[in-house]
Amino acid sequence: MAIQKIESHLAGEWCSGTSEGAALVNPATEEVVATSSTDGLDFAKGLAFAREEGGAALRKMTFAERGELLQRMSDALQAEREPLIDSAIVNGGCTRGDAKFDVDGAIGVLAYYARLGKELGDVRVLPDGEGMALARGARFWGQHVWLPRRGVAVLVNAFNFPSWGFAEKAACSILGGMPVVTKPATSTALTSYLCTKAIVEQAKLPAGVYSFVGGSPGDMLEHLGVQDILSFTGSASTGQKLRSMAAVIKNSVPVNVEADSLNAAVLGPDVDIGSDAWDLFIKDVSREMSQKTGQKCTAVRRIFVPADKVADVIDALGARLDDVQIGDPSLKEVRMGPLASAAQLRDVRAGLGKLMEDADVAYGDPAAPIEGPGITAGKGYFFPKLILKARDSHGAKYVHDLEVFGPVATVCAYSGEAEDAAALVARGQGGLVASIYTDDNRFAEDMMMGVAPFHGRLYFGSSKIVDQALGSGLVLPMCCHGGPGRAGGGEELGGMRGVNHFMQRTAIQGNRAMVQAITGTKE
Amino acid sequence: MAIQKIESHLAGEWCSGTSEGAALVNPATEEVVATSSTDGLDFAKGLAFAREEGGAALRKMTFAERGELLQRMSDALQAEREPLIDSAIVNGGCTRGDAKFDVDGAIGVLAYYARLGKELGDVRVLPDGEGMALARGARFWGQHVWLPRRGVAVLVNAFNFPSWGFAEKAACSILGGMPVVTKPATSTALTSYLCTKAIVEQAKLPAGVYSFVGGSPGDMLEHLGVQDILSFTGSASTGQKLRSMAAVIKNSVPVNVEADSLNAAVLGPDVDIGSDAWDLFIKDVSREMSQKTGQKCTAVRRIFVPADKVADVIDALGARLDDVQIGDPSLKEVRMGPLASAAQLRDVRAGLGKLMEDADVAYGDPAAPIEGPGITAGKGYFFPKLILKARDSHGAKYVHDLEVFGPVATVCAYSGEAEDAAALVARGQGGLVASIYTDDNRFAEDMMMGVAPFHGRLYFGSSKIVDQALGSGLVLPMCCHGGPGRAGGGEELGGMRGVNHFMQRTAIQGNRAMVQAITGTKE
Repeated sequence: MAIQKIESHLAGEWCSGTSEGAALVNPATEEVVATSSTDGLDFAKGLAFAREEGGAALRKMTFAERGELLQRMSDALQAEREPLIDSAIVNGGCTRGDAKFDVDGAIGVLAYYARLGKELGDVRVLPDGEGMALARGARFWGQHVWLPRRGVAVLVNAFNFPSWGFAEKAACSILGGMPVVTKPATSTALTSYLCTKAIVEQAKLPAGVYSFVGGSPGDMLEHLGVQDILSFTGSASTGQKLRSMAAVIKNSVPVNVEADSLNAAVLGPDVDIGSDAWDLFIKDVSREMSQKTGQKCTAVRRIFVPADKVADVIDALGARLDDVQIGDPSLKEVRMGPLASAAQLRDVRAGLGKLMEDADVAYGDPAAPIEGPGITAGKGYFFPKLILKARDSHGAKYVHDLEVFGPVATVCAYSGEAEDAAALVARGQGGLVASIYTDDNRFAEDMMMGVAPFHGRLYFGSSKIVDQALGSGLVLPMCCHGGPGRAGGGEELGGMRGVNHFMQRTAIQGNRAMVQAITGTKE
Repeated sequence: MAIQKIESHLAGEWCSGTSEGAALVNPATEEVVATSSTDGLDFAKGLAFAREEGGAALRKMTFAERGELLQRMSDALQAEREPLIDSAIVNGGCTRGDAKFDVDGAIGVLAYYARLGKELGDVRVLPDGEGMALARGARFWGQHVWLPRRGVAVLVNAFNFPSWGFAEKAACSILGGMPVVTKPATSTALTSYLCTKAIVEQAKLPAGVYSFVGGSPGDMLEHLGVQDILSFTGSASTGQKLRSMAAVIKNSVPVNVEADSLNAAVLGPDVDIGSDAWDLFIKDVSREMSQKTGQKCTAVRRIFVPADKVADVIDALGARLDDVQIGDPSLKEVRMGPLASAAQLRDVRAGLGKLMEDADVAYGDPAAPIEGPGITAGKGYFFPKLILKARDSHGAKYVHDLEVFGPVATVCAYSGEAEDAAALVARGQGGLVASIYTDDNRFAEDMMMGVAPFHGRLYFGSSKIVDQALGSGLVLPMCCHGGPGRAGGGEELGGMRGVNHFMQRTAIQGNRAMVQAITGTKE
C-alpha cells in the first residue's frame, strides 16, 4: 500500500504543509501508512473564511436545508464506507467490527441530525419556551429564541473515533448554523482525511461550511474569538490546557470538554449468578473492556460487585475474554487489535503500574509475550486483556483516579448496599456513564439519586431488556453524552440539546405583536 | 450612626476575622460606616459544611419545599426593607429610588422563584423532555432528568447590587437544590450583611443552606471541587482571573460570569422627533444613563442615532438630564448620588480620558467643580452626567471597547440602515442587552437577526408600549440575563433556565417500566 499524504482543507481549498511531516503508522506492524504536515498553513485565514463565507451561507439556510447538507455528508461517508473501514484497520489498529462501530456511528449521527433538521422545518429562528406577558397589561411581551452564533466551531477530536468523533460534533454545529473546522488526532488521522475527501468531493457543501486540519493545529486556537466555540474530546490534561488558553479566557469562548472517565459497572445485590441479568452484565462488561482494545471514552474501568460474588464475576468475565482473540486486526479471526500508537502503549503500561499499587492481576498476564495471528514478535503496540482486583475498594487511590486507556478494568468489592456502591462510584469525581445491573427498582432509584449528579448518562441493565439493550458504551444521538468534573463538564448530542450549544439564547422583549412577528411565534 | 462590624456566617455560625479589617465608607461624605474582616476564617470548613449539611437538607426537600424557603427569605428582606434601603443610601451612594430598585429586586426575585417552586410541586426529580424508545423494540427506553449537583454554589457579587445580586443567584441555586455561599463586594457589603442577618434570624433555613462571607474570600476559591459551581458578577478582568484558577480548571467547575457590557441603544430611522417612540427613547436612555449613577451592568453606554438626528438627540437627552439633581443621596431632592467608592471614581476618570480619544463632550463638564445639595467641596466620589459624541462611529476604538461604569454615554451616528447599526452594535463584542426603538417590524427583525447572537436580551421600545415598557435596564426573573464574549458568556434567570444551571442533566437508559418508575414519568 502506497504511503498517503494527508492534506488539509482550509479557506475552501486543499492545502499541505511545507515540511515532510509526521509519520502515521499501522499499529499492528509499525509500517508507515501516511504522512501529515500543516506547517505554514494560514489558520487565521482559514477561520476567518469559515466565519464569513460558511457562516453566512448557513445562516441563509433553514434548519431543513441544513439538514439536507448533513444527509449529503452522511451519504458521502456511506458511499466510501469500505475504504473508510479499511483505513481504520490499517491506521487505527481496529478490527473490522471496531472500524464499523466508528464509521457507522458517523453515518448514523449525521443521518439522525439530518432528520431532526427536516422536522424543525423551514425556519431560521427557533423559539425557546412560550411567550409571556412581562407587565400587568398584556402588551409588553417576552419570547426567548435561539439563533446561530456568528463564529466558527473548532472541533478537536481524539484518536479513537476518527469518523464518529468529528461527525457528532459537526452534525450539531452545522444544524445549529455554525461552520466547523475539524482537527483529528494526528496518529489516526488517515480515516478523518478520507472522510473529508468524501465530504468535499461528494457532499458539495457551500464553501467554508466544513474545513479540515490534517495534523498539528499550529497557532489556530490563538485566533478564537468571542463568537467561536471550541469542542474537544481527549485527555483531561489537554482539555485543561485548552480551557486555560489566553484567547479562550479573554473571549469567553465556550469550551466543551469530553475527557477522562472512570466509568463504573455495578452489579446489583439482587442479581443471581447465571440469571439473565447476570449474563447481560458479563456480556456487556467483557465487550466494554475489549472493544476497540479498551480505547473508548465510555469503556468500563471499574466493576463494583457484592463481595460474595467477586470470584464468580472474575471467572465469568475471564471465560468470555478468553474468546477474544488478539492479533493483527486485518485478519478475520482476530477480535482485538493493538493499541493505536506507541504513545498509548507507553501510557497504558505506566498506568497499569500505578493501578497495581492498589490491585492485583486476577486475569491475564501483563508480563507474558503476546502471541496471536499476524503478530510479529517485537512489532506492534499490542497489550493483553487484564482484569485486576482491588485489595481494598475504599482505600484504593489510583483505581478511582487514573484512567488507563486500554483493555484493563478493576473489580472492586462493595457491601451490597446502594449507598456503599454510590459512594464508590462517586469517587471517580465525575464520569460519562455508569451502568447498573439490577431488576430491583428500589436499588435502581437509590443508585440514580446517588450517582446521576456525577454523570451525563446512566444505563440500567436488567433481565427485561437482554434482547434489546445496546450496552453502556454506545453513544446514541438522542441521549446526552458528557459528564461533570473529571469528565470535562461537557455535554454533547441529546437531540436538540446538542444543537443548542452552538446557538445563542436571547430574550426578545417588546410589543407583543412585534415580538411575535419577528420571532415567528404568532399563534 | 455607630460604625457597624460586618460578620460572616459559615458552618452554621456567625464569625469574625481576627484583624481590624477594611473600612466601608459613605461615598457621599467619606465617613466610615462599617468594618469588615475575614482573616483567619476557615473557608474550607465552611464550604464542606454547606455541601454536607446544607446540600443533604435541600436534596431531601421537594421543589415546593425549597420554594417555601425562598418565600421565607423574601419575607425576611421585606420585613427589614426600610433598614436595608437606609444602609444602601449610606454605604452605596444610592438615592432612595436606587436603593429600592436593588432591595425590591431581591424581594421580588426570591418571591418569583418561590412561586416557581410551588408550581414544580412535590417532586425531587425533574424530567427534561419526553421519554423515548432507544431501540426497535419499545422496551429499551431513555429519559433525561435534572438532579441537584452535590456541591456548593459560591456566589461572588458586584458592589452595585448588594441585595438583588446575591438574591437572584441564591434563588436559582437553592430552588435547584444547591446550598450557597455568598460573597458581596466589600465596599458596599453593609447592605448584604443586613440581608444576611434578616435571613439568618427570620427565615430559619436548614443549617448550611445559606452562608455568607462578609469581606475578602481569602483562599475559599482554591477549595472548589468537581460538583461545585462558581457564579460571578463583576469586571471582565476579575471574571477572567476566576475562570483561570487552578481548582476551577482542574475540576471543570462551571463558572457563570456576568461582566462588562457596552450596552447599545439604537434609534430606528422611522422614529420621528417628538413622536411617542422618540419620547420613550429619550426617557429610557436618560434613566439608563443616570440611575444608580450609571453603575448598572445593563446601563446604556452607546447610543446609535441616524446621522441627521444626532444633534436633536443630544439636546433632548441633555434637557432630561438637567432635571437629575446630583447631591447627597440621603436628601429627598437628590436624584443621583456619588459613585460607590474612591476606586470607582478613579476608574471612571481614567476611562473618560480614554473615551475622549474617540469622542468630544457634548453635554456636561467633566472639569467643573460638582455642586449640589449636601455636597461638601473636596469630599465624596461625585461625578457629573456626561454625554459624549463620537467623532467617527466606525473608527472609534475605546467607545466600543471600554466600559466606563458611571453616568457617561457616547452618541454615535449611523447611516439609518439596520445593517450599519447592527455592525456597530456588534463591535461591543458581546453584551447583556441592546435596546432598539422602532415601530417598523422589518427594521426590528433585521436588528434581531444581526445582533441577537451577541446578546442575552434585546429590548424593543415602540409607540405601542410607552405605557407598559419597563426599560432595558430592568432584569426580570422570567427572562435570561447574561451575554456572550465580553459580557462573560454567562446566563442567569429566565425562569427554570436559571435553575438548571445548578443541576446536572443525566440521560437515564433502561427498561421502560423501570426508567419511568424511578424518574416519576409513568403516564
